[in-house]
Amino acid sequence: MTAERKSRARTRGGMILIGGSEDKAGDRGILRQVVARAGKGPFIVATLASEEPERQWEVYARIFRELGLRRLVHLDIRGREDALDPVQLEKVAGASGIFFTGGDQVRITTKLKGTELYARVRELFEGGTLVAGTSAGASAMGTAMLVGGSTKEESHKVGGAFYMAQGLGFVDDLIIDQHFAQRARIERLIGAVAENPGGIALGIDEDTAVVLDDQDFSVIGAGAVYVADGRTVTHTNMSEAATGKTLCLFDATLHVLCRGSGFNLRTRRPIPPGD
Amino acid sequence: MTAERKSRARTRGGMILIGGSEDKAGDRGILRQVVARAGKGPFIVATLASEEPERQWEVYARIFRELGLRRLVHLDIRGREDALDPVQLEKVAGASGIFFTGGDQVRITTKLKGTELYARVRELFEGGTLVAGTSAGASAMGTAMLVGGSTKEESHKVGGAFYMAQGLGFVDDLIIDQHFAQRARIERLIGAVAENPGGIALGIDEDTAVVLDDQDFSVIGAGAVYVADGRTVTHTNMSEAATGKTLCLFDATLHVLCRGSGFNLRTRRPIPPGD
Repeated sequence: MTAERKSRARTRGGMILIGGSEDKAGDRGILRQVVARAGKGPFIVATLASEEPERQWEVYARIFRELGLRRLVHLDIRGREDALDPVQLEKVAGASGIFFTGGDQVRITTKLKGTELYARVRELFEGGTLVAGTSAGASAMGTAMLVGGSTKEESHKVGGAFYMAQGLGFVDDLIIDQHFAQRARIERLIGAVAENPGGIALGIDEDTAVVLDDQDFSVIGAGAVYVADGRTVTHTNMSEAATGKTLCLFDATLHVLCRGSGFNLRTRRPIPPGD
Repeated sequence: MTAERKSRARTRGGMILIGGSEDKAGDRGILRQVVARAGKGPFIVATLASEEPERQWEVYARIFRELGLRRLVHLDIRGREDALDPVQLEKVAGASGIFFTGGDQVRITTKLKGTELYARVRELFEGGTLVAGTSAGASAMGTAMLVGGSTKEESHKVGGAFYMAQGLGFVDDLIIDQHFAQRARIERLIGAVAENPGGIALGIDEDTAVVLDDQDFSVIGAGAVYVADGRTVTHTNMSEAATGKTLCLFDATLHVLCRGSGFNLRTRRPIPPGD
């Protein structure tokens, strides 16, 4: 318990996963937290997920500058060829924070995985550099990602509502979904643990974030974070079912985490606010 | 187990709860099941929930006639004064099936509860008469009902997304929600078990139904049924939280039941298809 508390008390580095649509005009509490944990080294705004990288860079550069960051760098990677360019390695050198903007998470993973740049970013993260992401930029951090799929109608059809793709894998056994309540994505969260019953699936509301230190995270922002744990599952038809068949899943564990509460990824136990 | 199997094998009476928008033009599998379980006595179409009782009566009378029912009766109760009229008792006498149409579940409970007619309907149900309902007509059957509330945005605010009202209480410890996947109602289902942790909350998809015999039910139709069990909950801020605060709820158990699977309300255990 002491180790947990110590880790939760850390104030630099780690990971901040934002459910999208974080407050950009008011108090900007979540982005302030990003700034606070990033330290004073170069801060990278990585717009890999976006179809409007320049626009995203302008928006976030302005905000982060207003919140006190001075050494802002745009990591503008539009194709995999850009990711392979050694110039990018210089750009991220010594970064104390890296922020992945939203868009499409597959644009992040297909450009970045398997490159030297990916290895460098991972080294930075493991060395104490804050890695943060919003929306698609958050989803990309897990071991697997939820991609596509309608949120309604076909939601209970096996294989019908979404597909899973490999994420950057910065955190083990974790699947991250965003815009959670707002896009009503419980079915795909449940589908994700049906397909990955050893894993934890997080559904993060808009303007809500998890702040991860080593093995545990806490919730900040306006909304809630859903945690679906597949380890308790006793029965599912996920493997035997043909695509289009209705999903069966028994005994999934579901936690709803409010602001100030937390979760330990090792013990898989939620932590009440104030503990 | 023998008792369970026996009860599941029953083919008359019991209760059929439909998530709304059941197929009315194609195979009409769910409504066929209603007819099959109703037997040949008078069949009551109760339009209490509807603002268009005549229209609902026409729609269902035509379908049930096409499916082979001959003794159809319209229970047309527009205000509580109608429910108190002794003529209604004659209408339901000897009924072998009662079908509650959709609309607003509060229109059912506020007209019916505490009346002689309510007692008579309950007696009929307990004596083996099939009671079925679709949409609001299904919701009304539980001990408590979910009423109103947005399905998104405010979904994680305690007290913000819905309120609970007393249902007809034909089934103990059961809260029933409908149009489940289609209206993305997981938050209010979870809120319902947070408020009633001893209870079971069912979220029934459209064109999907549970067929209840005594202590267990099975799933029929096109979609899935979500079952949230609050008994495993280890922490919630539901009582201490002011309205508008984000909900915390740890260790809820969630089952997704596909067609052919079932659930025992006494043991609180799901039953895989084919068992």
